[in-house]
Amino acid sequence: MSSPVIIINLKAYREGFGQNAHKIAMYAEQVAHESGVTIGVAPMYMDIHPLSHHYEIPVYAQHVDGIKPGAYTGHVPAIAVREAGASGTLVNHSERRLTLAEISASMEAAKAAHLETVVCTNNVATSAAAASFSPDYIAIEPPELIGTGISVSKADPGIIEKSVAAVEAVNPDVKVLTGAGIHSGECVKTAVDLGTAGVLLASGVVKADDPLAVLRDLVSLL
Amino acid sequence: MSSPVIIINLKAYREGFGQNAHKIAMYAEQVAHESGVTIGVAPMYMDIHPLSHHYEIPVYAQHVDGIKPGAYTGHVPAIAVREAGASGTLVNHSERRLTLAEISASMEAAKAAHLETVVCTNNVATSAAAASFSPDYIAIEPPELIGTGISVSKADPGIIEKSVAAVEAVNPDVKVLTGAGIHSGECVKTAVDLGTAGVLLASGVVKADDPLAVLRDLVSLL
Amino acid sequence: MSSPVIIINLKAYREGFGQNAHKIAMYAEQVAHESGVTIGVAPMYMDIHPLSHHYEIPVYAQHVDGIKPGAYTGHVPAIAVREAGASGTLVNHSERRLTLAEISASMEAAKAAHLETVVCTNNVATSAAAASFSPDYIAIEPPELIGTGISVSKADPGIIEKSVAAVEAVNPDVKVLTGAGIHSGECVKTAVDLGTAGVLLASGVVKADDPLAVLRDLVSLL
Amino acid sequence: MSSPVIIINLKAYREGFGQNAHKIAMYAEQVAHESGVTIGVAPMYMDIHPLSHHYEIPVYAQHVDGIKPGAYTGHVPAIAVREAGASGTLVNHSERRLTLAEISASMEAAKAAHLETVVCTNNVATSAAAASFSPDYIAIEPPELIGTGISVSKADPGIIEKSVAAVEAVNPDVKVLTGAGIHSGECVKTAVDLGTAGVLLASGVVKADDPLAVLRDLVSLL
Repeated sequence: MSSPVIIINLKAYREGFGQNAHKIAMYAEQVAHESGVTIGVAPMYMDIHPLSHHYEIPVYAQHVDGIKPGAYTGHVPAIAVREAGASGTLVNHSERRLTLAEISASMEAAKAAHLETVVCTNNVATSAAAASFSPDYIAIEPPELIGTGISVSKADPGIIEKSVAAVEAVNPDVKVLTGAGIHSGECVKTAVDLGTAGVLLASGVVKADDPLAVLRDLVSLL
Repeated sequence: MSSPVIIINLKAYREGFGQNAHKIAMYAEQVAHESGVTIGVAPMYMDIHPLSHHYEIPVYAQHVDGIKPGAYTGHVPAIAVREAGASGTLVNHSERRLTLAEISASMEAAKAAHLETVVCTNNVATSAAAASFSPDYIAIEPPELIGTGISVSKADPGIIEKSVAAVEAVNPDVKVLTGAGIHSGECVKTAVDLGTAGVLLASGVVKADDPLAVLRDLVSLL
Repeated sequence: MSSPVIIINLKAYREGFGQNAHKIAMYAEQVAHESGVTIGVAPMYMDIHPLSHHYEIPVYAQHVDGIKPGAYTGHVPAIAVREAGASGTLVNHSERRLTLAEISASMEAAKAAHLETVVCTNNVATSAAAASFSPDYIAIEPPELIGTGISVSKADPGIIEKSVAAVEAVNPDVKVLTGAGIHSGECVKTAVDLGTAGVLLASGVVKADDPLAVLRDLVSLL
Repeated sequence: MSSPVIIINLKAYREGFGQNAHKIAMYAEQVAHESGVTIGVAPMYMDIHPLSHHYEIPVYAQHVDGIKPGAYTGHVPAIAVREAGASGTLVNHSERRLTLAEISASMEAAKAAHLETVVCTNNVATSAAAASFSPDYIAIEPPELIGTGISVSKADPGIIEKSVAAVEAVNPDVKVLTGAGIHSGECVKTAVDLGTAGVLLASGVVKADDPLAVLRDLVSLL
């Protein structure tokens, strides 16, 4: 069994871009080295290049458009985030929803650019649907729990177990991540015990008073 | 094996709303009676009520929002189209794409309102994904063929066969419709021979010089 | 000076579509006749045809797409709502926002179809911008007050006065309506005293225990 | 009278991001130094930081979201592009349209971040509307001419003259740029003769065989 993965979405938090992004990435790299756990970050576009080049951790785009390079303004092709240094991308985050056709196109573009893919979903049916695109990961985040500090693994473990089963039925190679409300080592342990490959979280680390301490806590029970 | 179904999307064609919608619906009813084939129409919202009450054919909304009745302006809850007389709805048409989460919500709302559901998709992967929501029908319409008069069943039969197989693997109760470019009885026959339950078409009937003749041709080889 | 106008947005409220829409429209017609005040309703698309034909009050679409009739699924051209019986339309309601280019196209389509236009805005700058399109009305609805029962004319009269002045500077023929939180005759009177031509409201009437009594109260101080 | 400005939108062109973006920016800097004309570039987000730090030319974001820093994934607050080094931003480009309320919010955020603003519009009415937000520039790009190599200043000089007049009537401090189809020094000269402050172009430079030669031609008649 492979080691769990932790992905930290820096969102557009004041504490998560520019110099603050460097701080989080540095801590993530440090705790990854201490613990052997894979810890990645998903910064804003402008921070993809500097973080990718300064730290030895996976860097994910928060979104890619399912387009080929061309006449698109304010859009981001997968190949461009790859060349900027990203090794993966979130797709269809609840704060950046895509149509079904766009998910299909984004997945195709991301795979062609050799980006690892993390498709975000909100319930069992959408998780099963997302598995049809064979992403590397599906991150389940019930919208009502995002940013609450109430871990989905505690509030509704059933949705995780059912999603793991539904995803496995469609494509057993797709790994599942637990999202929404993750904030402690206990949350991460529960997520892994429920059969998921790790967690996707944001405010729990980014807006913490002591992000380094939180990161150490997250890996403490693995 | 059940009889094939033909669904005519009236879109926002000048030839497809108001009095023109009545004409198409009247012809559809006539040919349905002559042939025993089920022929439905998907008119603009304003024509749902009159068509549902004047003709004995299935009437589909072109879209429903995945919302409960409430403070939404310019939106259409499934229960409202049901009460207006519709018996089903298109979901995620290529000219009205929805996010994955919206498809999930629309499907839930449509089922709760006892509406038949026809989810439109554009390729094999999106068809498999759509099957996760257990709609009554999945209509495959490769966007590049829509409105061309080039039938998908002729231009790319492989996409139909692969989609039928992919949908069946996810949920064998979901029927598939062939869309895009359908315009003749031969197209319909090929669609059925490829394992689909019928066709979804629009301009082939709505913009025809003689819609009644086209409708009779469509059912001629069944 | 022309008489004030009251427009009731029925939204997608359970109390505002189907038979319930008839009830509100009937009351609106009754109070319009009693008082001489113009009272219009903006029902869901499916109710445009029946309400337009049963009642002698202005009926507004909640939204029109800035398209010509054609290959658009789930869209609503201005000419189609006109033919269904509407005499006007809301444009850019806060629950159905449009891009600047879409507002331009919707306005053009609505005028070509001889629909009265009510463009909704959220602050002074967007009200001035909307005036460039020369609509019949601009309805100012600060989003934070919508559905609160706190009248904008009480909470922030300054935004109304400044918007009236800004709109007049761009085009003095454009009338302004006060929206958000309107629920009583006092609100309507204040709205008129602030220089606006009337009010746009929704829940205050639609979700009232006694809509007829509220309607009578709304016109009581005019 | 101030010197004309030339802004090159690098879009998502293969020839416009990563190392290719550096090449265009280097040429722009060179020709700006040779000619004294201000030449700016609008690269993809990931290239904002490197281009801002390597070249002494204005760098514009292609889009900013009208949000404050916070829980937004795949979004870009104005303050973040400012901190990454941009000195301005495009707003409402035809390939990234915004609602009227979003334009208002983006303008407010951009001004708060001390970014120069270039609002893109498509006709006279939208240009007048955009002037209500008091941007630094309004760039008129009739969509039907974008990417054609047919200069708007040649195809439809009337739209430019009317837009200049309409913008001036609303706010004489707002400068106008001519967009769409610009590709030569003659186009730029005509644009200036029509009363605009410069040009916004893309493929004419970015996809040229010899961008340096095109840039020199663009400034040749000023």
